[in-house]
Amino acid sequence: MVFEHEKLDDIGIGGYKIIQDKRGFCFGSDAVLLAAFTRVPKGARVMDLCTGTGIIPVLIWAKQSPASIDAVELLEDTADMAARTMTLNGLSDIRVRCADIKDAPEIYGRGVFDVVTCNPPYMHSGGGLVNPSGRLAAARHEIFCTLEDVVRTASLLLRNAGRFFMVHRADRLCDCICTLREHRLEPKRMSLVYPNSKKAPNLALIEALLNGKPQLKVTEPIFMYDDNGVYLQQI
Amino acid sequence: MVFEHEKLDDIGIGGYKIIQDKRGFCFGSDAVLLAAFTRVPKGARVMDLCTGTGIIPVLIWAKQSPASIDAVELLEDTADMAARTMTLNGLSDIRVRCADIKDAPEIYGRGVFDVVTCNPPYMHSGGGLVNPSGRLAAARHEIFCTLEDVVRTASLLLRNAGRFFMVHRADRLCDCICTLREHRLEPKRMSLVYPNSKKAPNLALIEALLNGKPQLKVTEPIFMYDDNGVYLQQI
Repeated sequence: MVFEHEKLDDIGIGGYKIIQDKRGFCFGSDAVLLAAFTRVPKGARVMDLCTGTGIIPVLIWAKQSPASIDAVELLEDTADMAARTMTLNGLSDIRVRCADIKDAPEIYGRGVFDVVTCNPPYMHSGGGLVNPSGRLAAARHEIFCTLEDVVRTASLLLRNAGRFFMVHRADRLCDCICTLREHRLEPKRMSLVYPNSKKAPNLALIEALLNGKPQLKVTEPIFMYDDNGVYLQQI
Repeated sequence: MVFEHEKLDDIGIGGYKIIQDKRGFCFGSDAVLLAAFTRVPKGARVMDLCTGTGIIPVLIWAKQSPASIDAVELLEDTADMAARTMTLNGLSDIRVRCADIKDAPEIYGRGVFDVVTCNPPYMHSGGGLVNPSGRLAAARHEIFCTLEDVVRTASLLLRNAGRFFMVHRADRLCDCICTLREHRLEPKRMSLVYPNSKKAPNLALIEALLNGKPQLKVTEPIFMYDDNGVYLQQI
């Protein structure tokens, strides 16, 4: 069921629909970019941390062939909404659970996932104006989980040579790289997302390999718009 | 004087010329890009590590207004060639010395430079085929100095809030960022240099601030060629 304060949006692939809260945080291009950047081996067991509406699991399911996807969301209302999205779409192999990501290694076990994904809250909880709405603030700010929490959790959940895919603001790139390395997650592939070919990038997409050797492949640039302002098809 | 095995090239700015060894390592676009990326406050005291032919000091002198530039080169022949380039151009405020960069903090003192630049050898000395010519190998491989040596030296030479500018291969980006942070040099600005808008970047240019706070500004992309293969003027 879909409540009155919610809306049902077609994601444009495989006929899947997603429930979103009209008053809350709706998925953005960062989630779509992360799902497109993530490479899931066939039959892989996948975990999506801070799943929100569940958009990333649905997009991965629509385009790739994992065995199953677990998804964790801290906020009860949001987790319930994501679970209803999976029911609505008949996606019984995507399992949403309301939990703190810091508890995930205890709940699911250590070293059991092939792939972990995360589109985490972007802001330091200390900096910037925290939006008064609790739900929006949780999605945008590091109130309930820090970058360190996300990376540590991913490292614990992954099997050896498992892969972690994340998106973050480009200005946090050094924090991401150093935190990943501290937790034995070696960045192996990175894409920067530029608004167009003349602007600074907003986002960094990073693939890290648990216990990998150093050597980063930075990809060709991703542009959101061409120089005439036309939204690009690759996204 | 210019020896028979050498050549004299006009650098195209300010009428300055540079002596290069026909048999050895000639400066490339990485040096030109680093000089263009480096921002020198007026009257600053500058140090260029691993200066080679001295191209970076000459380019900085031609376009900016430092008080003086010191430059260190390990190989005696190369250091002598660079010193003759400065004499030839009447650049008495660029002082070249033949020394190991690891000795520079002792020679020049700690915390005495406002700006340090370096276009270091790019390859791990363990990896790749080491070119048999000693001169070429020294310029290309980490035989005589590692990334760690370069960054530690820069950190020791800089005054508080001094700035270090470096160029390195894009695939060493994580090593650069983590090594800089380990030595209290916080990356504040980075440009990636792409061959064109459809290819992966070769080089990363990084500006780091001694004892700076985390927050990286990644700039708009730099392209070496446009999509028709035309060499771009910004370089």
